[in-house]
Amino acid sequence: MADYNAPLKDMKLALNQVARMTQLSAMPRFEDASADMVDAILEEASRVSRDVIAPTNWEGDQQGVKLGPDGVVCPESFHGVYQQYAEGGWGSLQFDPEYGGQGMPYLLSVPVMEMWQSANLSWGLCPLLSQGAVECLYLNASDELKNIYLPKLISGEWAGTMNLTEGGAGSDLSQVRCKAEPQDDHYLISGEKIFITWGDHSLTENIVHLVLARLPDAPAGVRGISLFLVPKYLVNADGSLGERNRAGALSLEHKLGIHASPTCVMEFDGSVGYLVGEPNRGLACMFTMMNNARLGVGLQGVSISERAYQKALIFAGERIQGPAVGSREPGPIIRHGDVRRMLLTMKSLTEAARALTYDACGSLDFAEHAEDAAQREDERARAALLTPIVKGWCTEIAQEVTSLGVQIHGGMGFIEETGAAQFFRDARILPIYEGTNGIQALDLVGRKTTMDKGRALTALIAEMRATIAGAEHFSDLAAELENGVKALEVARDLLLQGYEADAQLPGAIAYNFMMLAGTVTGGWELLRQAEAAKAMQQSSDDSFYAAKQSTTRFYFAQILPRYLGFAQMINAGSATITELPEEQFSSAW
Amino acid sequence: MADYNAPLKDMKLALNQVARMTQLSAMPRFEDASADMVDAILEEASRVSRDVIAPTNWEGDQQGVKLGPDGVVCPESFHGVYQQYAEGGWGSLQFDPEYGGQGMPYLLSVPVMEMWQSANLSWGLCPLLSQGAVECLYLNASDELKNIYLPKLISGEWAGTMNLTEGGAGSDLSQVRCKAEPQDDHYLISGEKIFITWGDHSLTENIVHLVLARLPDAPAGVRGISLFLVPKYLVNADGSLGERNRAGALSLEHKLGIHASPTCVMEFDGSVGYLVGEPNRGLACMFTMMNNARLGVGLQGVSISERAYQKALIFAGERIQGPAVGSREPGPIIRHGDVRRMLLTMKSLTEAARALTYDACGSLDFAEHAEDAAQREDERARAALLTPIVKGWCTEIAQEVTSLGVQIHGGMGFIEETGAAQFFRDARILPIYEGTNGIQALDLVGRKTTMDKGRALTALIAEMRATIAGAEHFSDLAAELENGVKALEVARDLLLQGYEADAQLPGAIAYNFMMLAGTVTGGWELLRQAEAAKAMQQSSDDSFYAAKQSTTRFYFAQILPRYLGFAQMINAGSATITELPEEQFSSAW
Repeated sequence: MADYNAPLKDMKLALNQVARMTQLSAMPRFEDASADMVDAILEEASRVSRDVIAPTNWEGDQQGVKLGPDGVVCPESFHGVYQQYAEGGWGSLQFDPEYGGQGMPYLLSVPVMEMWQSANLSWGLCPLLSQGAVECLYLNASDELKNIYLPKLISGEWAGTMNLTEGGAGSDLSQVRCKAEPQDDHYLISGEKIFITWGDHSLTENIVHLVLARLPDAPAGVRGISLFLVPKYLVNADGSLGERNRAGALSLEHKLGIHASPTCVMEFDGSVGYLVGEPNRGLACMFTMMNNARLGVGLQGVSISERAYQKALIFAGERIQGPAVGSREPGPIIRHGDVRRMLLTMKSLTEAARALTYDACGSLDFAEHAEDAAQREDERARAALLTPIVKGWCTEIAQEVTSLGVQIHGGMGFIEETGAAQFFRDARILPIYEGTNGIQALDLVGRKTTMDKGRALTALIAEMRATIAGAEHFSDLAAELENGVKALEVARDLLLQGYEADAQLPGAIAYNFMMLAGTVTGGWELLRQAEAAKAMQQSSDDSFYAAKQSTTRFYFAQILPRYLGFAQMINAGSATITELPEEQFSSAW
Repeated sequence: MADYNAPLKDMKLALNQVARMTQLSAMPRFEDASADMVDAILEEASRVSRDVIAPTNWEGDQQGVKLGPDGVVCPESFHGVYQQYAEGGWGSLQFDPEYGGQGMPYLLSVPVMEMWQSANLSWGLCPLLSQGAVECLYLNASDELKNIYLPKLISGEWAGTMNLTEGGAGSDLSQVRCKAEPQDDHYLISGEKIFITWGDHSLTENIVHLVLARLPDAPAGVRGISLFLVPKYLVNADGSLGERNRAGALSLEHKLGIHASPTCVMEFDGSVGYLVGEPNRGLACMFTMMNNARLGVGLQGVSISERAYQKALIFAGERIQGPAVGSREPGPIIRHGDVRRMLLTMKSLTEAARALTYDACGSLDFAEHAEDAAQREDERARAALLTPIVKGWCTEIAQEVTSLGVQIHGGMGFIEETGAAQFFRDARILPIYEGTNGIQALDLVGRKTTMDKGRALTALIAEMRATIAGAEHFSDLAAELENGVKALEVARDLLLQGYEADAQLPGAIAYNFMMLAGTVTGGWELLRQAEAAKAMQQSSDDSFYAAKQSTTRFYFAQILPRYLGFAQMINAGSATITELPEEQFSSAW
């Protein structure tokens, strides 16, 4: 049996019943994205992810990456996988045909990307970051840079990286010290960056580094950071590769997981670079890339959860232990109530997270392509609000789901060769990179809620209320959801009414606010799907629709109640979080 | 700065204010366990754990263990550590002076064992299992076997192991296939055991394996399993070591964590063994050992949580990032609300789990030594009830605490050399071994609740109510606790009234029942400590007492509310857990 099979029906239900793919397909500009074409693309991606990429996952983890004299050496099989990815045009789906893209909705690239990440999270980071680099350059770079770099990045011939973090400057980018000196038509970039994912490799003939650095006259702090494009190999006027730039990996990190993804310390030593966007506006340029990368990381949470679930399900169906209730014979452990609870927790969280992620990504398409300017603005705000929820909640649930995946395997789960532990190890980076979940939570309560006086959140609450009011088949679940929505509303009001008088409040409640929002919106997305599934089941004998309804009922009974705890914790405010003096935290009295 | 410092004040508060150490010290049989002696023992254990054992933890993880031609090779430094442990008499604290023990309360060995496990979880498994073997032999073996084996095990000259699991027989011991053929005064044991912790090593000159196997005429199932003592080296009549027995490690597992603890596949190939206890009653004998080992594993959850907390706290105090609320200067991240939330979550969960574990262990002393027979029986039932809560809840919170330890380190947490990831990896075994937490939860709802009609749980609820009624300083927290206790009472009644009509109910609600019980009893233990701390603070300027009160308030505001979710999930019963047909779990439609 294959290691991984894309959950195509659930993906399509999320695309069409939640994320409005059908509305996008109806737009003239997306006339190529017909339902048949979407199906065909998903089917082919499913084949590639199952037959080509997934088989390299475990061996990649075991082989890991090394730094050799000519740079980073990654697992041999990754070259062939990358080549098939590039040749299949998979890196170009959603990009502008002017630069060689296929002009499909961004939303369509999302399930495809989910499959790559499920198949091999380490490998998948390379395309994920390259797509971020394309978006960043597309929106910010000069036409000249775009003409030179975008076609090769979009075709997959070249890869892209993000170079933000420096030693001592993690979440706090104001500390960036890398320097950029102007010289002729370019700049010379000097400094060290750490934690650079796929910072070097030989999967592609060139690598395009996007690097934050300071110009000589730059003001201190985040308003003095500029963005530069630094190619691994310089590019000649005719587009051919020139000499090697002075930019490369100094060392690799020895990590808990994603062993096959090289995490590099990068050295820029008077490297030739080109300014992207305006001087001192680098952070704004990078934010485009970061926001989409955050959705991408949330999607990785969905991906690794799906993979962990599939593995645990196979085991639970094959592993024979003592008789379950109602039986006298030994049988597979899936018949035991607590194992079913674990499997259904994994399944329902993964499906809720998928629908939420797709929904947020869909909003980005409408933010760009909706005819009405006001709608575009609303969709932009909606996507901005959902982004930290997707990044934060979907990666938090990935911790739980991959840990349950280990647990279902019992003692075998702790043995590396079983493979369940790899998903658990790999998943652990997701709440950390692209802005820790603490940063996401602060973004949610601050920039995304207090800064717009709760407008976007209020609009989302109204959307949920509309679903509740329109529920035809599951009015009992709708009533439960209403309780969750009310709790979210109370939390919103507590935040908006309290944050000026108590400056500690947002930081103190942020994490629980994010978890409350994720738990409730996840339930909402499932309810929308269950309503659609019930309707579709009436004209189909496909039991996928029945399973969706059962999974939703499980979520409402066994997952949604978590909102009660989050709500009460938020309601307790900042008092007990701020009262213990710093010097009294010690436990070694 | 040392890597690990024992939390002595918190240990003593838990011992004296929760676990009734002072009452034990007042018993004539424990006249040597005066307060001064307890202090001296804890101080010395603190020194050994900090200066001798803790420094071997990271190097042990990196070196791991190997199987050589002469058996298992463990990290070099472990030999010296073990020698100091044995020579210090640390393995003999709680055992019978008749066999060389020091006759101290078992309870006193608990904080000492906590220190070993905090210092090095891999190494600490060796003494932990040896102590289990001592208990099992002490209660079940013939005088002849006891005279030969106990003194050497208690002195630490020899080590002990537990051999239960076989391939295909994990939680389900009815599947045990190992055979025992009678021959002369002994038996020949044949078969393979898997997942045998410290199954072979050279820390001690001999190893005493306790092995479950079947006699030729044994009935099928668990009623046909007998327990045998199988030494690595046979023992001559004069107590000297004889020839090598045919029992040893076939291979070692490659694991997610506890890399320095050899997990062996053991082969018994006509090995000489001796019957322990009655034929076919092996499981009952082993249960003594397993129950105490379960408390030991819960204690390991406390230990690894404490260690992870200490590491995260140091980092949070040293890592400088952007200004916190109310400041304009960069400062240590401990000043940020969300980091404080994470640290306080770690701290309060660890302290609650410690108090709960010590409390349960104290009951075992009273179960053995209380003058009144009825009290002994009550204490036995109390310890039996608390055991699955300690094992389950304290190891579940260890997952959360060690994961937060990684999270607080940000990107550095994912780098192995930082060390936070090791605690996260090591902790992952705790919910699995000594009976998975699913098994613990079933034990709690079944054997420990429905089987005694809720008597022990009702008694525990009454104890909590007495604390609530007697709360002098924290009546607000007592009122919160009452809500939690009520929820536990409702869950108890739902279980007792429903399990006969709905056979699926216990399995479906077991996990949430265990988590509810842990969350509420953990809060109760903290409240008892906070009340004592408030009283003691009035005659002391020790700010440890103030910190305990703040930590308790945090727990009640930010942790206890989880009970609301568990209660509602339990209330939802088994319906949504049982409804999805097995064949509809697939996600790969």
